[in-house]
Amino acid sequence: MADILHRIGVEKASPDDVYQALTTIDGLSAWWTRDTTGDTETGGVIAFRFPPGGFDMKVVELVPGKRVKWEVVDGPAEWIGTHVSFDLRQDGDYTIVLFEHRGWADQVEFMYHCSTKWATYLLSLKQLLETGQGAPSPVDLQISDWH
Amino acid sequence: MADILHRIGVEKASPDDVYQALTTIDGLSAWWTRDTTGDTETGGVIAFRFPPGGFDMKVVELVPGKRVKWEVVDGPAEWIGTHVSFDLRQDGDYTIVLFEHRGWADQVEFMYHCSTKWATYLLSLKQLLETGQGAPSPVDLQISDWH
Repeated sequence: MADILHRIGVEKASPDDVYQALTTIDGLSAWWTRDTTGDTETGGVIAFRFPPGGFDMKVVELVPGKRVKWEVVDGPAEWIGTHVSFDLRQDGDYTIVLFEHRGWADQVEFMYHCSTKWATYLLSLKQLLETGQGAPSPVDLQISDWH
Repeated sequence: MADILHRIGVEKASPDDVYQALTTIDGLSAWWTRDTTGDTETGGVIAFRFPPGGFDMKVVELVPGKRVKWEVVDGPAEWIGTHVSFDLRQDGDYTIVLFEHRGWADQVEFMYHCSTKWATYLLSLKQLLETGQGAPSPVDLQISDWH
């Protein structure tokens, strides 16, 4: 098993602010992909779509202001059954976000791509909360021929 | 053991161009840190310095236009003995860079930070080759309270 891990600090935003951006359709649409629909409550399924395809995430854990965890229930074969989580805590003027995308079966090249791409989306989340403007798909940063 | 993996594609640059940016003091200074000194030949040690400290990398493998591998011989305890590598290949208009920082003993919070930070430096490498201007330390993108 292999994992993608990231850490960002969002300045002058509270853990509750970040939690809102992770648990509402409006929030998620503003940093990950504008084409986000579904049910963001525990047990619900959120559909994230991008020009080349997308992911369906089942919400498996919600701790307000602290933790969000999803299970991938549909999407590319390598993603199905993996888990994505965000742990939040206040640290001075920052909300620290510890991100995990755990449970990849193999270190395939697509995983290398997703690791870098997650970093850019997390920086989009940071930018959204700090400036009011994220860079969600389809206006996301292109990192390669795989977008 | 845990690994940091990334993939970027550099447009309109050849594998040889990217290799130059990974194997010369001028190249490395223009995307990772301006404070780069040392010997970039096989067996040499390159000293990378940042405001909070730095890393000494021993060059353990060089395959022109294809592969660069370093061993961390000094720096933060978590980094010592880990390996950093860059594999290059042409893919249409892109040079694909597969990056690995392998051999972390534990998934400590510092590893989460380094994973995100490596993504930003690889995007600096891409930007350097595509536009002539990277974002090396100390003008690098700040991602958190840990910089």
